[in-house]
Amino acid sequence: MISSSPIQNLIDQFNKLPGIGQKTSERFVFSLLKKPQAEINQFIQALNNLKEGIKICSDCHNFSAKSLCEICADKTRDQSVICVVAESVDIIALEKVSEYHGVYHVLQGLINQIEEVGPEKLKIKELINRIKKNKVEEIILALNATMPGETTALYLARELKPLGIKITRLARGLPMGSDIEYADEITLSSALSGRREI
Amino acid sequence: MISSSPIQNLIDQFNKLPGIGQKTSERFVFSLLKKPQAEINQFIQALNNLKEGIKICSDCHNFSAKSLCEICADKTRDQSVICVVAESVDIIALEKVSEYHGVYHVLQGLINQIEEVGPEKLKIKELINRIKKNKVEEIILALNATMPGETTALYLARELKPLGIKITRLARGLPMGSDIEYADEITLSSALSGRREI
Repeated sequence: MISSSPIQNLIDQFNKLPGIGQKTSERFVFSLLKKPQAEINQFIQALNNLKEGIKICSDCHNFSAKSLCEICADKTRDQSVICVVAESVDIIALEKVSEYHGVYHVLQGLINQIEEVGPEKLKIKELINRIKKNKVEEIILALNATMPGETTALYLARELKPLGIKITRLARGLPMGSDIEYADEITLSSALSGRREI
Repeated sequence: MISSSPIQNLIDQFNKLPGIGQKTSERFVFSLLKKPQAEINQFIQALNNLKEGIKICSDCHNFSAKSLCEICADKTRDQSVICVVAESVDIIALEKVSEYHGVYHVLQGLINQIEEVGPEKLKIKELINRIKKNKVEEIILALNATMPGETTALYLARELKPLGIKITRLARGLPMGSDIEYADEITLSSALSGRREI
């Protein structure tokens, strides 16, 4: 019924989004079909404008409207602390906490042997140059608690050590709302070794 | 960083899709940002073409490329059996089973007191006219096993009874892969009362 139709074409497009399968794509398209054309046009407009005027910040490699992003250009932010993240989207999550007042550096990926991403594909050289050029006191590694995240953290720690700056990483432990009963051994072990006095 | 930017605009658009929240929208937009413009253009094209040439089938009220949909126009399908569904998307699910060879009727919703959807807003009059005009032997009610689905099924059963045709509904019972231990009482009760000899 819907093969090779405008409906199927749009389902195929939604299907390409991360984590979205056939059923969800179908739901999206049928929900759009019920909406007035004006709302669909807004969607088209937003897609049209997406890449227009989006640059990469020359300092931190985050997406930005200008050649220097808002965070890097902000004089009130502490330029001596750089938080290293894998992707721009991680910055959004960290900024929501609004406890961090330093700047960021986007690696644009993580070292991943399976997907053949080596350190040379990441913005590591740029990070080292940035540290050498500026007065940097601390590097916070805010990378995923996964195998690629760990590998990249270890690699960065080794590369940055000779520069003689403080290198930290986010704490490991029980996430909020979790049961000890269901926590995995690695998490529990990190929670134990990282225990704090109260 | 991203407020009132092209990025935020597109996040807002994705946010309007059913079941999609802020985080998922962000993930969609940042995945699109990494794609070449040509792929985004395909997406725009598909959205642009969506409603162009999509009509509502005059018989079953399903979305269709012609004034009569492919299923209603198909001479090999049994026109004497009508499967009543709430939405077009339900037809996709039923057609995938490829065990049904009758035709469909899309109500375009379900009776829902909370959302103030009364029977007059659904294609029920059209269903009754269709039954009166054609030789219909059976109506299969394929409605959600929810409160609005049940209400609509009961209403339809009462309205269609005087027409003297067979009215059935989909079986209730344990879904594939489920544990009896975790099944709710209503499901277990349906599974018991609908038990079959093997």
